[in-house]
Amino acid sequence: MAGKLLLEFGSPEAIFNASLTALEAQRLPAAVAQAIHNRQPMSAAAKELAQVRDTGCHLVTWDDPIYPQRLREIYDPPPLLYVRGNMELLGRHLISIVGARRPTPYGNQMAERLGRDLAARGLVVVSGLARGIDACAHQGALSTPAGTTIGVLGCGIDVIYPKENKKLFAEIERRGALISEFPMGTFPGAQNFPIRNRVIAGMSLGIVCVEGSEYSGSLITSRLGMEFGREVFGVPGNVTQPTSFAPNQLIKQGAKLVTDWNDVVEELPTPVRADLLPVESPSAQERATLVDASLSASEKALYEILGVDEARQIDDLVEFSGLTSSEVLATLFDLELKGLVRQLPGKQFLKVLL
Amino acid sequence: MAGKLLLEFGSPEAIFNASLTALEAQRLPAAVAQAIHNRQPMSAAAKELAQVRDTGCHLVTWDDPIYPQRLREIYDPPPLLYVRGNMELLGRHLISIVGARRPTPYGNQMAERLGRDLAARGLVVVSGLARGIDACAHQGALSTPAGTTIGVLGCGIDVIYPKENKKLFAEIERRGALISEFPMGTFPGAQNFPIRNRVIAGMSLGIVCVEGSEYSGSLITSRLGMEFGREVFGVPGNVTQPTSFAPNQLIKQGAKLVTDWNDVVEELPTPVRADLLPVESPSAQERATLVDASLSASEKALYEILGVDEARQIDDLVEFSGLTSSEVLATLFDLELKGLVRQLPGKQFLKVLL
Repeated sequence: MAGKLLLEFGSPEAIFNASLTALEAQRLPAAVAQAIHNRQPMSAAAKELAQVRDTGCHLVTWDDPIYPQRLREIYDPPPLLYVRGNMELLGRHLISIVGARRPTPYGNQMAERLGRDLAARGLVVVSGLARGIDACAHQGALSTPAGTTIGVLGCGIDVIYPKENKKLFAEIERRGALISEFPMGTFPGAQNFPIRNRVIAGMSLGIVCVEGSEYSGSLITSRLGMEFGREVFGVPGNVTQPTSFAPNQLIKQGAKLVTDWNDVVEELPTPVRADLLPVESPSAQERATLVDASLSASEKALYEILGVDEARQIDDLVEFSGLTSSEVLATLFDLELKGLVRQLPGKQFLKVLL
Repeated sequence: MAGKLLLEFGSPEAIFNASLTALEAQRLPAAVAQAIHNRQPMSAAAKELAQVRDTGCHLVTWDDPIYPQRLREIYDPPPLLYVRGNMELLGRHLISIVGARRPTPYGNQMAERLGRDLAARGLVVVSGLARGIDACAHQGALSTPAGTTIGVLGCGIDVIYPKENKKLFAEIERRGALISEFPMGTFPGAQNFPIRNRVIAGMSLGIVCVEGSEYSGSLITSRLGMEFGREVFGVPGNVTQPTSFAPNQLIKQGAKLVTDWNDVVEELPTPVRADLLPVESPSAQERATLVDASLSASEKALYEILGVDEARQIDDLVEFSGLTSSEVLATLFDLELKGLVRQLPGKQFLKVLL
């Protein structure tokens, strides 16, 4: 609505200077038109601005050159973005990764690997800072030295939600950017997330859907991406996993099947591809060979038993490795330090996807 | 070559009546032309015919109306097919299922379910009677009352390979058909399988690839299907599984992503779809609800722990179900009898995909 008024009157000043009749002609509720005419929002705005200054965040209006160009093209772009962190990132090449809040280990690993590999090429990884796939995509982007990422919030820019992502928030503010269109202090209500999702779909070149169930927000965000004319990508998964529904369904409907970062980059416009960083990174196969050569005998014994998609219990590891339980514990600790193994709750262990 | 000569001379008789010069003009090696001219193959053929009669198999030449119509359209159709079982099936609507010889439990289950559900609609399921996906596809087709299936062999029609499929051979001969283009007694040499695969790709309306590694025969068969203008389908799988390579790659290249039988049937020509049987079968979800309602408390406890994609050790089942090991064994036995659980080598158990 704010956008419509701006288009009609040309500037915020003009809106507040407009006659009551002109405002009412825009089909505003009478009380709202009256409030605008009486400049009631001005005091609220002054208070909000003071808070913005206190938080140290920036305001980016849609006529600002730094406002994400693609976001400006959608039907209802947010007229104002609150930004914390590196504002410049908004003008860079953005790619969104979306997915389930309760993914499988496979989904987590794919999100993290894609986040890392796309960020390493200079793409800014956009996601929603939710639990699960979102968090993994951000973390993946930050795991590569020059990687950057943008978190799009469904609450006020001064609200941290979910709480468990507090460290990730701080890290993204330091090395990336947090953005929100909601006023300071806005509670993360369920109704905010679809509104937030259109920003994730709208601002980026493409949307990668990693996992999502039949009625998931990630499926909706990706479909919105299709409507906006964005490239849409799906990471395939076993049909028997309910979280594979969204990406598999999107692929059926024309999304590109993605097995690694290359499949995403291939679909980007040539000028974007020309801007990407030539990363001389080893392929997954080369990484595997390097890792293999660096392992001790007991590490190798454990590493071969561990899976990428399904975590294994420590008891199974003892049983199948032929090592004692203290050897297994010590070796797992070494493998974790090397970044090759990850521990999940309940003494379960997973091979990190290279 | 036989095909070329037939096209040139019009009939087998005409070939044997041709002059030596005419035969040599077809670029036959001199010795071969000489042998044909001297009617040497005739005695070999007489011997072969006697064997065919002994085995009780039929011969179908490419001008026979029962010869699979689509197979006749490829570049080099076999001039002669040896057939055991129900010859009529060659003229029906055929759909091929191909895949890895060493599939994952997930692949096996998907092949079996697709085989069953496609056969239940009246499609004849074609595969290569190899280990793994082939065997599961045939078994799936035979698991439905009126289901039929064709096994295409890479050896003589009187040779059973691999031996472990002996029972399946007998069952397919009884309820379906076995076919081969190789002479009686031909050994299943490696060079025969690509030749056999073109028949699987050529004779059917479409090819469904379930699992296959990067350099697998199933990938080649499916690509051949694309070249022949057949519909090609891929069952997606986790990127981290090497056997997901073939179907995922095919989908990238335009194959249709398949999650159930409906995705296959949707792509078939309208006249074919009109011939299919309207099966009032419950959906996977409805089956799950029915099963759930039929389970006892201990069955339910175990059934919920079991997975469809990964088999579980009996020790884990005891640990996580809270049942004693004798209760677990008895309950697993009941679940197996109900067809809900399958035992794999090494006391491992898997939920059957509904």
